[in-house]
Amino acid sequence: MTARIRISEIFGPTIQGEGPLIGRPTVFVRTAGCDYRCAWCDTLYAVLPEYRDQWTFMTPADIMARVNDLAGGQPVLISLSGGNPALQPLGDLISLGRHEGHSFALETQGSVSQAWFAELDWLFLSPKPPSSDMTPDLDALDACVRAAEGRPSCALKVAVFDDADYSFARMVADRHPSLPIYLQVGNPAPSIDKTGGTHAETADVDDLMRRMRWLVSKVVADRWFAATVLPQLHVLAWGNKRGV
Amino acid sequence: MTARIRISEIFGPTIQGEGPLIGRPTVFVRTAGCDYRCAWCDTLYAVLPEYRDQWTFMTPADIMARVNDLAGGQPVLISLSGGNPALQPLGDLISLGRHEGHSFALETQGSVSQAWFAELDWLFLSPKPPSSDMTPDLDALDACVRAAEGRPSCALKVAVFDDADYSFARMVADRHPSLPIYLQVGNPAPSIDKTGGTHAETADVDDLMRRMRWLVSKVVADRWFAATVLPQLHVLAWGNKRGV
Repeated sequence: MTARIRISEIFGPTIQGEGPLIGRPTVFVRTAGCDYRCAWCDTLYAVLPEYRDQWTFMTPADIMARVNDLAGGQPVLISLSGGNPALQPLGDLISLGRHEGHSFALETQGSVSQAWFAELDWLFLSPKPPSSDMTPDLDALDACVRAAEGRPSCALKVAVFDDADYSFARMVADRHPSLPIYLQVGNPAPSIDKTGGTHAETADVDDLMRRMRWLVSKVVADRWFAATVLPQLHVLAWGNKRGV
Repeated sequence: MTARIRISEIFGPTIQGEGPLIGRPTVFVRTAGCDYRCAWCDTLYAVLPEYRDQWTFMTPADIMARVNDLAGGQPVLISLSGGNPALQPLGDLISLGRHEGHSFALETQGSVSQAWFAELDWLFLSPKPPSSDMTPDLDALDACVRAAEGRPSCALKVAVFDDADYSFARMVADRHPSLPIYLQVGNPAPSIDKTGGTHAETADVDDLMRRMRWLVSKVVADRWFAATVLPQLHVLAWGNKRGV
């Protein structure tokens, strides 16, 4: 029997707003459930158990039917996100989707490694910096990198809100010098907060671009030319809104 | 004798704001002179003869000395831009810089092909759409693609302001189906106009993001999943300002 997958939402096509595939049309498959509780999590509705009544269990075939419907039957980049998608049994889904001509990118914090990472096209490891209030397990991150060896393109991505986050990103990059690293401008305005209240959906673009300039100035001052600095493009275009 | 190169400006390190290398730290070497006069050109100071007194002729060694000074002696991505850099004798510069560990990306409209394109790491061909008021020579573009075969990563980039530009981009992509294509959100506010007046340096970010959403909606409606949609990131972060 094929294991079912806990899903928060499936939406798109839209563009990927982050990381190495920024600007690429994609359908998002967001799994539900997470082993982390990041201070600035922007998808708490896919993380906190109190949102469980909004989640569904779906088979790989159900998920691919939905993706194919959204993509009009065309092969498309499927972005597996969460929550932490590494907690879900995604091997069969990836196998089915690739058989139909789709490609897969997965983003995870790197706390849990899976053998099926090797079946992905892209694996983006996003260990959480100090501002998240989480303590990443760097041995687990190493295991994720090893699981991807051979097949998927692998890259690191670190959200940077402050100097401590920046130092963390440098440390992680030093630990994995062969991997490209993407520094993501921190976005302090998630769309829902932990108490269930809602933040404004309008992003403070001026603040985000001020943070972007600061991060570029850090990288330039340190002559850290191997790092790539990017904002969350979807937040600039649509604000802190779901489903885009 | 090494041919000298006509230079408008050398600046950085900053981030590349456009195309496949968006977000990457780079030093820009902007050559002077252009065979085009695009309606919305954002670097007329590197194009129009009346700015000639701001241009200098430099040897490859002079240019690399300046780049090395800016980059603190570290190997860096050098972005060759213009004007049309394909009009300049850049072969010796690329050879010298690569020998010192640097890498090179060049962007041109694709009107002039050069044998030394093969020495680049990246070649970005940006044929100009109808809104530019230019008429691109697609045979010349084909010759540029052929000149890059074998070595540099080659990609297409088309600025899209309106439906006619979008149709042009689709046509160019169909002509070169093996090349990745980047659709760039049109920016109607260059920093100087043709009469020598100055526009406001502040970018209209709301307008640019509205254009971005429109362009994403076009790509999604057509299920054109091979296209990547990106804004000019440097304009969002710094406005229409020189030297960033």
